[in-house]
Amino acid sequence: MNAEIIAAGSELLTPARLDTNSLFLTARLNDLGIEVAAKAVVGDDVDRLSATIRDAMARSEVVLVSGGLGPTEDDVTREAAARALGRGLHFRQDICDAIEARFARMNRRMSEINRRQAYVIDGAEVLPNPNGTAPGLWIEEGARVIALLPGPPAELKPMFESECLPRLRRIAPPAVIRTLCYRVAGMPESDLDQLISPVYRQYSNPVTTILAAPGDIQIHLRARCGAEAEAEKLLEEVGRRIEERLGDKIYSRRGEPLEEVVGRRLRETGSTLSVAESCTGGMLAERITSVPGNSDYFIGGFLVYTNQMKTRILSVDPALLERHGAVSEAVAEAMACGARERTGSTFALSVTGVAGPAGGTEAKPVGTVVIGLAGPQQVRSWRSRFLGGRDRVRALSVQTALDLLRRALA
Amino acid sequence: MNAEIIAAGSELLTPARLDTNSLFLTARLNDLGIEVAAKAVVGDDVDRLSATIRDAMARSEVVLVSGGLGPTEDDVTREAAARALGRGLHFRQDICDAIEARFARMNRRMSEINRRQAYVIDGAEVLPNPNGTAPGLWIEEGARVIALLPGPPAELKPMFESECLPRLRRIAPPAVIRTLCYRVAGMPESDLDQLISPVYRQYSNPVTTILAAPGDIQIHLRARCGAEAEAEKLLEEVGRRIEERLGDKIYSRRGEPLEEVVGRRLRETGSTLSVAESCTGGMLAERITSVPGNSDYFIGGFLVYTNQMKTRILSVDPALLERHGAVSEAVAEAMACGARERTGSTFALSVTGVAGPAGGTEAKPVGTVVIGLAGPQQVRSWRSRFLGGRDRVRALSVQTALDLLRRALA
Repeated sequence: MNAEIIAAGSELLTPARLDTNSLFLTARLNDLGIEVAAKAVVGDDVDRLSATIRDAMARSEVVLVSGGLGPTEDDVTREAAARALGRGLHFRQDICDAIEARFARMNRRMSEINRRQAYVIDGAEVLPNPNGTAPGLWIEEGARVIALLPGPPAELKPMFESECLPRLRRIAPPAVIRTLCYRVAGMPESDLDQLISPVYRQYSNPVTTILAAPGDIQIHLRARCGAEAEAEKLLEEVGRRIEERLGDKIYSRRGEPLEEVVGRRLRETGSTLSVAESCTGGMLAERITSVPGNSDYFIGGFLVYTNQMKTRILSVDPALLERHGAVSEAVAEAMACGARERTGSTFALSVTGVAGPAGGTEAKPVGTVVIGLAGPQQVRSWRSRFLGGRDRVRALSVQTALDLLRRALA
Repeated sequence: MNAEIIAAGSELLTPARLDTNSLFLTARLNDLGIEVAAKAVVGDDVDRLSATIRDAMARSEVVLVSGGLGPTEDDVTREAAARALGRGLHFRQDICDAIEARFARMNRRMSEINRRQAYVIDGAEVLPNPNGTAPGLWIEEGARVIALLPGPPAELKPMFESECLPRLRRIAPPAVIRTLCYRVAGMPESDLDQLISPVYRQYSNPVTTILAAPGDIQIHLRARCGAEAEAEKLLEEVGRRIEERLGDKIYSRRGEPLEEVVGRRLRETGSTLSVAESCTGGMLAERITSVPGNSDYFIGGFLVYTNQMKTRILSVDPALLERHGAVSEAVAEAMACGARERTGSTFALSVTGVAGPAGGTEAKPVGTVVIGLAGPQQVRSWRSRFLGGRDRVRALSVQTALDLLRRALA
């Protein structure tokens, strides 16, 4: 069973807006075993939108249209869908009354233009919208179905969950979908793909999708079967073969981000953490503290941007800075030791490097980063050179630091 | 003149990927005065893609297709476009040789499947790709034009800039486009829209687009005219009326982010800055240090997550913590003073709050944040309550802190 998603609205054709509703809708449709065959974005043009809806309905069993249900003349989705279906529109006093009551609750008077939102396509079911004025519409035409949904995500999502999902479940062929999400740190996408594509290419079920961010790759497996045991067996089989090839590069089998995995491990071992950041300037701590409940293990840290701060706050020996420079193994280790001593934490991570665009030298070009880790047994350091712009160098530094701590805690 | 953008690739129909190339392409097309009339995403299906290309060419003068130029059987864009145009494909030995040479430079042998990438649509111009193996194609059909571009942004963007833009400039009707981008901090989108929509609704030229992120709104004005003076006069007129209504809520007239505006002002006044962060855990410093050259004014900071850290590292009086709690004006001010004294900076910003999801009380519910600012003349503090989840509360705290510093520096 196939679906198509159409987003209506000229603002979605500007350089700064993307239709993100379709990601949510795709995930939910896939959960039912319904694949998305195409997506389209159309401006506020009734002829164009109506032609796009007609074409989509000719090809796919499910068509979802988002946006264009507002009260202004730009909002043409009701009319376009009616035209595509060759049906009429009729005014519904009860819907108009409900919109009026909603305005009254906010101590406002309904504008005349909101009456447009009370028109319903002949034969459509009305989908209530507790989060806005525009009701949705659900229309079945033989074995095909089209739903018109409001554009704002805060209105579309609850309406889809409560009104469309139960209706789709009735018409979608029964299927069990099971998913698995591996996350991998510290591998270029091409290296990872070369390793595991010989495995996943052998299977059309589960479907494998690879998503790469700097230093962080997600591998999604989605199995679609008639029975649960079958889906789980498939995932187990392909998952085991992927794990064999990636080993401890995999940091999560459940899709959590690295800071969550590291945080859980710190909590489990009763350890605490502090940080000393130079070039990442707070980005490492920001990642760690984005996890709710991190105060169980995160104590705090030091942003030691200047040499003076490194010396004054973390007691880094000025002779080390003189001899090795701020971006060096000796200074990274001294920073980690200083943070650990100042805070009394079990572990301390430090980052010092040249994030660029300026500041590089021949010996230490832009992208050179040294990470230090001080723990109860030892202090260690790692030197890397990351390619790319300032943002990328900083993001890769943070990801690498977290992954080094993960391995130390393993 | 209208354009349509088609993204080819089944991976773009999964729940986790969006076609972001179209944003870049839309911005560049708009710069030439070409509007985007529709966008589509199609999977690796030659029939479907060829029909989509044919429909788009029947409606719009410019059609851009991204993706599907790779070497595998999933890559069907060349074939689909040839079919849509009713033209043949021919093998080009010179392209094949260039691909082979590219592999050789990386010390690798070209696979047999890469020969697919050396096929060219009859009558097409070949667009060289210095960043990958897949060349692009440019085909004119009467007054219409279609360009096939590689999917990876790092290949598509330079190819579009160097090959497509000059060709499009030749065929686009002459027009002058001038833009203006205001940025506004600390206003809800609905309040802002209520203030300025009576202005911008009066103009269809310039086109106004509003883009809202938590605590940060961008207002884009785009004027399209026959002459430069006319476009600038229009922007001047609408811009002045918008500025009258927003006043000093506007922090930038050139679209730079807040951290850049604040950084420039610190540099101009020869001031330096340090931070003391509790609930934002590094996010404030991360924003400040994301600007290249920030070491001219940013000295460093302290992530004082626990009460003990606040006392030990920043000399916050334990009696204050006891009497007022960590989230209080007294503690925020003491944190800022402590950071300023420890670092010797001109200004110090502090943030302490309840980011949630846990930790709220009746007197200090989740979202309560106090920001402190210590400077040469005085120390001040501001209390806010932000609604939303942990990420939003933290992002709004950082934005508010930066905006308070901006106003202090004004």
